[in-house]
Amino acid sequence: MSVIVDFSLFPLDKGESLSPYVARSLRIIQESGLPYDFRAMGTSLEGEWDEVMEVVRRCLEAMRADCNRVVLHLKADCRKGPGGRLQRKIDSVREKL
Amino acid sequence: MSVIVDFSLFPLDKGESLSPYVARSLRIIQESGLPYDFRAMGTSLEGEWDEVMEVVRRCLEAMRADCNRVVLHLKADCRKGPGGRLQRKIDSVREKL
Amino acid sequence: MSVIVDFSLFPLDKGESLSPYVARSLRIIQESGLPYDFRAMGTSLEGEWDEVMEVVRRCLEAMRADCNRVVLHLKADCRKGPGGRLQRKIDSVREKL
Amino acid sequence: MSVIVDFSLFPLDKGESLSPYVARSLRIIQESGLPYDFRAMGTSLEGEWDEVMEVVRRCLEAMRADCNRVVLHLKADCRKGPGGRLQRKIDSVREKL
Repeated sequence: MSVIVDFSLFPLDKGESLSPYVARSLRIIQESGLPYDFRAMGTSLEGEWDEVMEVVRRCLEAMRADCNRVVLHLKADCRKGPGGRLQRKIDSVREKL
Repeated sequence: MSVIVDFSLFPLDKGESLSPYVARSLRIIQESGLPYDFRAMGTSLEGEWDEVMEVVRRCLEAMRADCNRVVLHLKADCRKGPGGRLQRKIDSVREKL
Repeated sequence: MSVIVDFSLFPLDKGESLSPYVARSLRIIQESGLPYDFRAMGTSLEGEWDEVMEVVRRCLEAMRADCNRVVLHLKADCRKGPGGRLQRKIDSVREKL
Repeated sequence: MSVIVDFSLFPLDKGESLSPYVARSLRIIQESGLPYDFRAMGTSLEGEWDEVMEVVRRCLEAMRADCNRVVLHLKADCRKGPGGRLQRKIDSVREKL
């Protein structure tokens, strides 16, 4: 079963400029080898639930290492059938226009 | 490190009346023994990250068993220090009023 | 059409102790007169879309007044039929147990 | 004050294939003339709070017209300073890698 997880993760105790902390997560995501889409408001990852959530857990651990308070927001879309949905979902809507 | 996870989980292919599916999750949450707060728009669970996310995973598995498409929304608040925050966060705001 | 909106709103540039800022929103919510449920991870409000979102807008304005960066998370459940769903949704799931 | 709103909106009573409903929202978003980024898990819109939320409201109205139950998920990032953040936030993180 294909899962797409879209998440954003940031500290509350490091002020308003968060890009160094987000970069830490992006590095972990890139090293995971999973298909991903990094955007302004979050990153979408596709894979099996356990492998995707292992990446999220690693990002969280890397942030908790030196942050006192961390907030995570995540949404997941789990659907029976083949993967490759990160792009196919977009194409499927555009064809309807 | 104390984690509060608030989540909602529902199928997209079972029509608009979802309480039987939500009840399935609530049973799993109750059996977990973790402190929780079940409300109209989601359930908050408190514990260690791994134990809380194991409950979420079990709820997801129970729903995927007979649903073709399942959506999850989750937010987490991770903070250094003691647990018991499900109630203490509420009290702390009310004292400021 | 009944709408329940559950939201959380906090500044990123004020450190990790946020209860004074959350209290500011809670005061605005209480003054709105709409049915609400204030919890550890967010507040649920019920009403018409325009009146509920006017409360959210006022909370946001009150926070932007002295915060440089503010994050909002919101989910809404809109359903045809009568209101009173803040409690009825909970009862409806509990009856299934 | 620049606001980026990322949102997803879908009916619960129309089965698991949602692209015709999402296309309806995308058309409204495109007609708004606001900068946007349409992706697999949601669409990000940038502008003033009132103009962005007017687009969200129009998408919701178009979906409620023939759907009995509609779910919305939204997150907003409001920051003092100039706009153009849909792309600049991404660049700012990539520079840190």
